[in-house]
Amino acid sequence: MVMKKIKAVFFDVDNTLYDSTLQVEMVRQNAIKAMIEAGMDITEEEGLEALKDIVGRMGSNYEHHFDDLLKKYGYESNPRIIAAGIVAYHTTKAAYLVPFPDTVPTILSLRDRGYKLGVITEGRSVKQWEKLIRLGLQHFFHTVVISEEIKRQKPDEEIFRTAAKRAGCHPEEAVMVGDRLDKDIIGAKKAGMVTVQIMKGKYCERKPESKDEEPDYVIPTLKELLKILE
Amino acid sequence: MVMKKIKAVFFDVDNTLYDSTLQVEMVRQNAIKAMIEAGMDITEEEGLEALKDIVGRMGSNYEHHFDDLLKKYGYESNPRIIAAGIVAYHTTKAAYLVPFPDTVPTILSLRDRGYKLGVITEGRSVKQWEKLIRLGLQHFFHTVVISEEIKRQKPDEEIFRTAAKRAGCHPEEAVMVGDRLDKDIIGAKKAGMVTVQIMKGKYCERKPESKDEEPDYVIPTLKELLKILE
Repeated sequence: MVMKKIKAVFFDVDNTLYDSTLQVEMVRQNAIKAMIEAGMDITEEEGLEALKDIVGRMGSNYEHHFDDLLKKYGYESNPRIIAAGIVAYHTTKAAYLVPFPDTVPTILSLRDRGYKLGVITEGRSVKQWEKLIRLGLQHFFHTVVISEEIKRQKPDEEIFRTAAKRAGCHPEEAVMVGDRLDKDIIGAKKAGMVTVQIMKGKYCERKPESKDEEPDYVIPTLKELLKILE
Repeated sequence: MVMKKIKAVFFDVDNTLYDSTLQVEMVRQNAIKAMIEAGMDITEEEGLEALKDIVGRMGSNYEHHFDDLLKKYGYESNPRIIAAGIVAYHTTKAAYLVPFPDTVPTILSLRDRGYKLGVITEGRSVKQWEKLIRLGLQHFFHTVVISEEIKRQKPDEEIFRTAAKRAGCHPEEAVMVGDRLDKDIIGAKKAGMVTVQIMKGKYCERKPESKDEEPDYVIPTLKELLKILE
């Protein structure tokens, strides 16, 4: 493959810069454990299954997961048990907001080599910035493009074009790194970027469903990016 | 003073079991510092003054303190700066949710001596339980009475009577410990409890405005309670 000279590297956040699959799993486990400690008489296994079922049906932004869980097992509304779940949720979420071991070294190497660096992420602007700040990554990127801000969702190619423009390059001069074929790879590819899939988290095992979803490169871990760019 | 045999001891939470005045101060300082690091060009002093002013006017449950602060200094809405303030707010709030050094030892001594122990606190049930859980105090009390749950605010004496009832004693057989004359002392006194004011936090310096606000005892720190009960 003939590459134009690469000037910018863009990153997805979840399962690309940190292990969000592990985070979600640990958050649920610890929430259930805390609710049991606070008085729910269920096993960890059944609690976890029930919680997954509720999240699956109601979506992850639903705010009454724990209330529904109590109801399912016949409990009255119980502020102590709800609070136990919420505290475990927040403390575990924060505890697992740490970069992969090679995230910061890789990003620093790329900056040393003169690349413009950016984040392209979905979600609400303040929430995504909170994530970058807790990850300790807020100062590393020349640009951060969040879907809420530009009113486009991945895989809309416009979100990738906007990022390239902000970094002062053409999409063909940029690399996009992400875990999801259906969000990061297909969109960046359509915009004209070089695409790199990172094999982390629960979404990466899904096979390409069309030629458009085939990444130019696949890497097991972030630091392999340095070899591709050599 | 002739005391009936005391069977139960009740505690307020803020500035009684932990230093909430210090917490509020540190939360504000760290939020301003983080917002400056994220790009606001103001001094810590002026930021802190402005934030206090906004909280003073809008109340502490208002959710747009940081947005208003940005506006005051002529900044556009900025998710990075807002997120920096929010992360500092949450991490600092959690970091200062630790009991006073003598809180746990005193509570354990009282349990060892056979007293029923309770919390009488204002606010929303889930939020107050979150506080007790983060303080690590959730298992110590025989009863927790929260104003939202019984639909009464301090100093309504009914909230104190309810607590006594739940602990299985008459109000006259109970001690109430709190920092505020206008909330804890006057209400508990009207209900018939023995009242102890703890001299912690920013509210305790206010002088009694009537006979009803005069506590039976004043203690500098929680462990002094053990001497009073001897």
